Order: sequence, then C-alpha cells, then structure tokens
Amino acid sequence: MEPSYSSLLLQNAVQELTRLPGIGRKTALRLALHLLRQPAEIAKALGDSVIKLREEVRYCRNCHTISDSDLCVICSNPKRDHSTICVVEDIRDMMAIENTSQYNGLYHVLGGVISPMEGIGPGELKMESLFNKAALLETNEVILALPSTVEGDTTNFYLYKTLRNAEVTVTTIARGIPVGDELDYTDEITLGRSILNRQAYHGMGS
Amino acid sequence: MEPSYSSLLLQNAVQELTRLPGIGRKTALRLALHLLRQPAEIAKALGDSVIKLREEVRYCRNCHTISDSDLCVICSNPKRDHSTICVVEDIRDMMAIENTSQYNGLYHVLGGVISPMEGIGPGELKMESLFNKAALLETNEVILALPSTVEGDTTNFYLYKTLRNAEVTVTTIARGIPVGDELDYTDEITLGRSILNRQAYHGMGS
Repeated sequence: MEPSYSSLLLQNAVQELTRLPGIGRKTALRLALHLLRQPAEIAKALGDSVIKLREEVRYCRNCHTISDSDLCVICSNPKRDHSTICVVEDIRDMMAIENTSQYNGLYHVLGGVISPMEGIGPGELKMESLFNKAALLETNEVILALPSTVEGDTTNFYLYKTLRNAEVTVTTIARGIPVGDELDYTDEITLGRSILNRQAYHGMGS
Repeated sequence: MEPSYSSLLLQNAVQELTRLPGIGRKTALRLALHLLRQPAEIAKALGDSVIKLREEVRYCRNCHTISDSDLCVICSNPKRDHSTICVVEDIRDMMAIENTSQYNGLYHVLGGVISPMEGIGPGELKMESLFNKAALLETNEVILALPSTVEGDTTNFYLYKTLRNAEVTVTTIARGIPVGDELDYTDEITLGRSILNRQAYHGMGS
C-alpha cells in the first residue's frame, strides 16, 4: 500500500529515488529525509551532477568508454601501447583493470555480452569497431577480459571466430586461484583450470 | 585508493551520490551507470525532484511535519480530532501510524529525541510549541509515541514532567508481543512488560 505522504514534494522525490536499482521505498525515504537535514547546496550539487552526467555524457569514439571528450584520456595518451586492446564488458571492469596499474594498452568497451535470454545479440554490442581496429596493421594483440559466465564464454568464442581471420594474437586473462586463497576452499572448476593452465615457475612470487 | 575515472562528469556524480548515507563508491558507480542507460528524462526528473524538495520544502507551523503549505493536510483537516496530539520522533513514525488508519488525532513531530551523546538537548527539539498546544483548553490528551530506547525514555520522562502541569492526559503507546509472534521468541523485557501491562479480555481478537 502506498503510504500517505504529508508533502507532494517529498512523495515525488521518494518516487524518483525508488526508480534506482536496489533502492526501495524505505531507503528512498531515508535518503530524502537525510537530504532535508543537509544544507541546500548538498541536494543542489547532487541533483545537478546527475542531470549533467546524463545530458553531457560522451563516449570515446575509439574505445566507447564514458568520456568528457571525443577521445578518452587513455586512447589519446601517446604513452599507452596502442598495439594491444583489452576487451571488457563495461566501464567498471575497465576501471578495475586500470586500478591494478599492470596494464598499459588500450581498451574496448563492448557494452555487454551476448545474451539470447535478454535479447542481446552481436548487433547490440560494439563489435564492428573492434573488428575494424583488429584489422589495422598497428594492432598486435586483443585480450579478452569478459566475465567467466556462459554469456561471457559465448561472447569470447564469437569474437575469437572473427578475430582469428585478422592478423592478431587473441589472448584471455588468466583464471586461477586468487592470490592468498586456500586451495581447499576454491571451487572445483577454478582449481581444475589452474592445474590444466599451470605455468613455468620463475622463483619467488608469480 | 581513488580509482581512475575516464570522465570527470562521472566522477563528480559518483562523489555526490556517495555523500548519501549507506551508499559506497561501488553502489554509487552502479547507480550512475544505471542512469546513463536510461532516457535523459529519468535523470532529469530525479535531479529536479531532489533539488526542488530541498529548496521548496516547508514545515507545518502546527505539527512541524514536512508539508507543501503553511499548515499540513492533517492539521488543516476539520474532521480530525484536534483534542488529541500524538508526539513522534520524525515524519517516518508519523507515516507509519497514519498507515494503520487507526488514529484520527493530530501529530507533533519533535525532530529527534534527547541525546546528550549527540549533543541534542530539549532546546534542539520542537518542545516549546508542544507545551503551548498542551496548555490550550481544546487539548485533552498527549500520546507519547517515541522509540523505546534510553533516549526515547529520557525524552518521554522530560515531556511528562512538564506536561503533567497542564490539564492534559498523558499516555504512551502500548508495548507488548507483536500480533502473530511466538511467546518464546519474544525478548524478556517485552514479554515481562506485556504481563505487567496485561489488559482485560474482551473476547475474540484484541
């Protein structure tokens, strides 16, 4: 039952907040009442930042990440290795890899993975531009860093089928036991793969 | 470590969202990316509703609830019983009681409870106007519906000390076993009170 709000302004704010994923009516009300206790600038800054984000957002023409300009800071950086392209599902995975400081190449944000259940086929994803980039002489390697789900594997295979025609090395990120994890707490599929894909030992660490 | 955002617009929106209680950086990023996938009107409506709420909010001059006008819909309703005032901590408790459809009197929103730990004394709460209303001839009963915490009990006692000088009946909401709960799962304090405050049996239900 919709509760009786004493104010239409409040009711409206709560309704808009509940459109966000994972935010129910009680949480939305708590957030709205929190904003009412803050200086007006806090609510203004929040509202403006959300509107501005959606209205002024741009996507990099090369890698399709969210960007403030036509070409993102990574794609426009001459110090990055432009011969390697890491394919990710969305910007969050790209940020996660950037945070490791272990990768110096470029990215390609697919915008999802193939999912017949959700009606997402190759046509709904940014694949054409990836194939065009892979066909360029300067591209040496395409790293597939998609999630290890059925959808991710399907997408990996689809990309691989097309990319093997191009003159590029196709690799995928290593799956294995996370650093610091116990072997007997690791699921069987991961443990099995980590044995099959064992690597030459190079001394301390890996 | 602060991650590297590919867009200042996105970084800004995430930072503003993380100011909200219970929303961390990962959740904020998820919300921002969700808004980017929606039509621009959704983000616009959310942003506007939040700004408008904070800028145009008004409080009822009688009961201090959030209201769109000088006097809220409850206080300005002649069909409500103006001789009874229910004292609540905040608007959420008021909404919870309204939703029961069991109460036809007015409310008084204190705006908190006495909490020396948080530096909230009687002066920080809307008490003076409650005492003024209680002193009016038309007021018969003041119902204390504050939380059953140390702070709530302290506030109850403080209000009672002053209100007993006025010609009003002071009552408090019944504490007891929630309807449908098992006796042996109820905490001892609640069960103890429900025996001490037992009521005359009136046949089926209660």
